[in-house]
Amino acid sequence: MIERDGRNIVLTVAYDGTEFFGFQSQAGTGLPTIQEALETAIHKLTGETITVEGSGRTDTGVHAWGQVVNFFTKSTIPPERWLLALAPYLPETIVVRESRQAAADFHARFSAKEKTYVYQFYCQAVPSPFHRRYSYHVTYDLDVEAMQEAAGYLEGSHDFRAFCAAGAKTKTFVREIYACRLEQDGCLLRLVVRGNGFLWNMVRIIAGTLLGVGAGKRRPQDLPVLLGLGDRRLTGATLPPQGLTLHHVEYGDLLK
Amino acid sequence: MIERDGRNIVLTVAYDGTEFFGFQSQAGTGLPTIQEALETAIHKLTGETITVEGSGRTDTGVHAWGQVVNFFTKSTIPPERWLLALAPYLPETIVVRESRQAAADFHARFSAKEKTYVYQFYCQAVPSPFHRRYSYHVTYDLDVEAMQEAAGYLEGSHDFRAFCAAGAKTKTFVREIYACRLEQDGCLLRLVVRGNGFLWNMVRIIAGTLLGVGAGKRRPQDLPVLLGLGDRRLTGATLPPQGLTLHHVEYGDLLK
Repeated sequence: MIERDGRNIVLTVAYDGTEFFGFQSQAGTGLPTIQEALETAIHKLTGETITVEGSGRTDTGVHAWGQVVNFFTKSTIPPERWLLALAPYLPETIVVRESRQAAADFHARFSAKEKTYVYQFYCQAVPSPFHRRYSYHVTYDLDVEAMQEAAGYLEGSHDFRAFCAAGAKTKTFVREIYACRLEQDGCLLRLVVRGNGFLWNMVRIIAGTLLGVGAGKRRPQDLPVLLGLGDRRLTGATLPPQGLTLHHVEYGDLLK
Repeated sequence: MIERDGRNIVLTVAYDGTEFFGFQSQAGTGLPTIQEALETAIHKLTGETITVEGSGRTDTGVHAWGQVVNFFTKSTIPPERWLLALAPYLPETIVVRESRQAAADFHARFSAKEKTYVYQFYCQAVPSPFHRRYSYHVTYDLDVEAMQEAAGYLEGSHDFRAFCAAGAKTKTFVREIYACRLEQDGCLLRLVVRGNGFLWNMVRIIAGTLLGVGAGKRRPQDLPVLLGLGDRRLTGATLPPQGLTLHHVEYGDLLK
């Protein structure tokens, strides 16, 4: 049970997920997670034992630039001071980028209106020691135009069960994707996906499927067929976590 | 003594220096270095015990994009195959970007005509978990125009003893800087310095001195005065190694 007394503090958090076992606490395992690191830092700062709610769980090795979390505190630390106050208690790999107070009914997960994920490919024959932690290395030439065309078919409201890890529990597989685009930036190719919600491993499976299109193994027009068949076995591989970053969570008027 | 039998193989090597104790082998210490990692990889591949010569030593924590090394081998591996052949024996943090054969008298250090170093500043109030390994975090506003003006005074042939770590052994402190420029790239500010040679810690001290100019603590026209006085105590701090990258070594016609 989360105590809803005191201020509802909202943090925007960036992290390098390389050395963490995902966002969610894995109680009793001793494995480092983002949630546990944040809760420990808050405990050291205020003495309170609180639960931090994230906008969603990121998996082991996945990064965030704009993860959003909230928690209730009786501390009198002004909302905007939490950013600096927590810094000494966090590892260098977790940075609070913004802190503020929200209404008592704001919830990082349930209040989220849309999320943006970025999957990053490093496209070069030879790998880069500087990008290995934050991208997936692709050694062959990609047909980015075909990938872009394929990505366009994913925009809109669809049943994405073919792009969801087996065994995921969910009431519905329907999600609305507002934008699914590719952006080239030198050796980096970024898949940017914005939607009202995402299924488990959805972006990594989309990235793997679009990679197949880029490699000429699939055609762009296969995408609507894959959506229609709804069979996970027909879509691409789940690409590795280090290419994925939770870039932004949007709350509209609920968080200004 | 380096055996000069066999082929003279030249490698262009990129590395993330974060977890290495610099380029040069520290025999008997067990500390990981780039040279030791390369020599071990070559030994595992060919069985030969050889010495790798680098274009220069990079200090603990300093990175390279284009470090150049050479070594003599009796192996029949074709020169251009070394790139792929060594990869399985190297950590992910060291990447051979190019391999080729040079004339017997080519020497990575003595044949070098010019080097380019980059010192990277991350300019934002809040640090970034993704840039912390590869930049120096600056939280205050910088006057980049003043820094650029100051950097211009360092171009040309000068006695750089004021920009050299105390205790460095060298015949002369005179070096020629062909270009000393600042480049802004979003939150990143890059100091790019190209010259015929560099003294110990020279780029990190230049970076520290220019940072003082950017912060308004020094004027651009102080730079010629600092050069003239030749006193290390008057120049800026040696900035931390993680911002520095050996970007390129140029050999002109000796390496095509």
